[in-house]
Amino acid sequence: MSFTYHRTVRFQDTDAAGVVYFANVLGICHEAYEESLEASGINLKEFFSNYSVAFPIVHTSVDFLRPMFCGDKLTISLMPQKLGVDKFEINYEIIVADVMVSKAITRHVCIETNSRNRTELPESVMRWLEINRKDAENIERRKSREAI
Amino acid sequence: MSFTYHRTVRFQDTDAAGVVYFANVLGICHEAYEESLEASGINLKEFFSNYSVAFPIVHTSVDFLRPMFCGDKLTISLMPQKLGVDKFEINYEIIVADVMVSKAITRHVCIETNSRNRTELPESVMRWLEINRKDAENIERRKSREAI
Amino acid sequence: MSFTYHRTVRFQDTDAAGVVYFANVLGICHEAYEESLEASGINLKEFFSNYSVAFPIVHTSVDFLRPMFCGDKLTISLMPQKLGVDKFEINYEIIVADVMVSKAITRHVCIETNSRNRTELPESVMRWLEINRKDAENIERRKSREAI
Amino acid sequence: MSFTYHRTVRFQDTDAAGVVYFANVLGICHEAYEESLEASGINLKEFFSNYSVAFPIVHTSVDFLRPMFCGDKLTISLMPQKLGVDKFEINYEIIVADVMVSKAITRHVCIETNSRNRTELPESVMRWLEINRKDAENIERRKSREAI
Repeated sequence: MSFTYHRTVRFQDTDAAGVVYFANVLGICHEAYEESLEASGINLKEFFSNYSVAFPIVHTSVDFLRPMFCGDKLTISLMPQKLGVDKFEINYEIIVADVMVSKAITRHVCIETNSRNRTELPESVMRWLEINRKDAENIERRKSREAI
Repeated sequence: MSFTYHRTVRFQDTDAAGVVYFANVLGICHEAYEESLEASGINLKEFFSNYSVAFPIVHTSVDFLRPMFCGDKLTISLMPQKLGVDKFEINYEIIVADVMVSKAITRHVCIETNSRNRTELPESVMRWLEINRKDAENIERRKSREAI
Repeated sequence: MSFTYHRTVRFQDTDAAGVVYFANVLGICHEAYEESLEASGINLKEFFSNYSVAFPIVHTSVDFLRPMFCGDKLTISLMPQKLGVDKFEINYEIIVADVMVSKAITRHVCIETNSRNRTELPESVMRWLEINRKDAENIERRKSREAI
Repeated sequence: MSFTYHRTVRFQDTDAAGVVYFANVLGICHEAYEESLEASGINLKEFFSNYSVAFPIVHTSVDFLRPMFCGDKLTISLMPQKLGVDKFEINYEIIVADVMVSKAITRHVCIETNSRNRTELPESVMRWLEINRKDAENIERRKSREAI
């Protein structure tokens, strides 16, 4: 199974139009990313604050298919993929009551925090990619079987 | 037992000082409030969007005792109290690893959404107050016993 | 000249990595959008809260070219474009000290707020598009001349 | 004159109740604080990221007198006051169209960033307090005269 994160839409996520403010969807996706890192054994405090390497996002895109409301129960699925020795991409799908409400991508590069030069992905992130890649492959395989 | 809400500190909650941005502590407390409302059977979407009555916050205060870091596992305890026919107050305590890191209060009044005039607390909120008041009393009683 | 909006990076915009949290870049772009709407005579409170039509974002993408720091002076340029009778797109460029630090796009559709059905762009938005389109054309023409 | 900061309420500041989300009022006050620091010659990037000393908020309170709506033009007045060798407090008043809509306080202590031990306020902050104290005194004097 792919990594999934469950999250209730909070009042703070909404705007005066009564639905989730568009940019907050990316914050919710990033929470799923954090949760999956932790599930693979990564210490979040070190990873995001004190690390010698960092993984800044260089590109993101989001499709907003349906509005999300305060109290909605979101299921966020996360599928990361290695793009090279120093970069990876994450695909996110957000589901409410079996209906897809949003899809998003974040693309990350690995840099040395001080120099901001590109550097190879560390062991811990390779392992996180490996764990979640297998999950994604299984999903693809299952989908193919269902399609037959 | 008092109502408790568990929450991991997210990267988005932090600022360039490396800790949770002060105003975000109130957002985290409000999440605990939403969670407790839902636990008492209240529909969050109706409560926060479509209701004929609303419960705006007229006063808040926060004590910040210790910094909170990305990845910290928070336990937020919530103790609401009726202050009159048209108002209530909530006390929050945030704990990390058995240490209190923050205390907060929010004071709410009940208004008719259209006129913004004060009105009596509805049945659903009275029930929520009742459920959580008993919990708080039990805590007080337990604390007294422990103190003897 | 294209519509430009000036904005200082706030402490609240940053995260524990010491730079602007990625999703907040979209919030800053949306501020520029609001500012340009107001500059064309649109009442923001009505536009975003009480309107019979709304303009939800159905797609967004961002390129993050360089990190932004607390106190940085941003210049956000905004170039909207009509895509059809019921949709438009906005291109944003964010500059710090003559260097482009980010580019973004938001794509909007026009809907009736109650039914959420697509509907034609109202007069006020057509005028806003017209005002800012001319500006963008002038920029394109200037760029072409410079390129010769 | 006291230090004042002008700020338009943004769509992102609002929630599904159609008004500014309560915790965001504190973010707006903090913007006024940042603006006043910069006006006294302090470099914000150094002050909030790289400094050997930091000024965490240990207490805050807010009174919400009237709702604020998207597009509202806020005037935030800021009055800081030294409370001791290692702490200060800031009072904020938020005005919309000559009506006070909110009042807030933030209390700050000065710490060495690494040890998190209390330390004396640096020269730059003493100067900022001095500049703005005089302003506040003038306001008080003017108020007294008006009261006669």
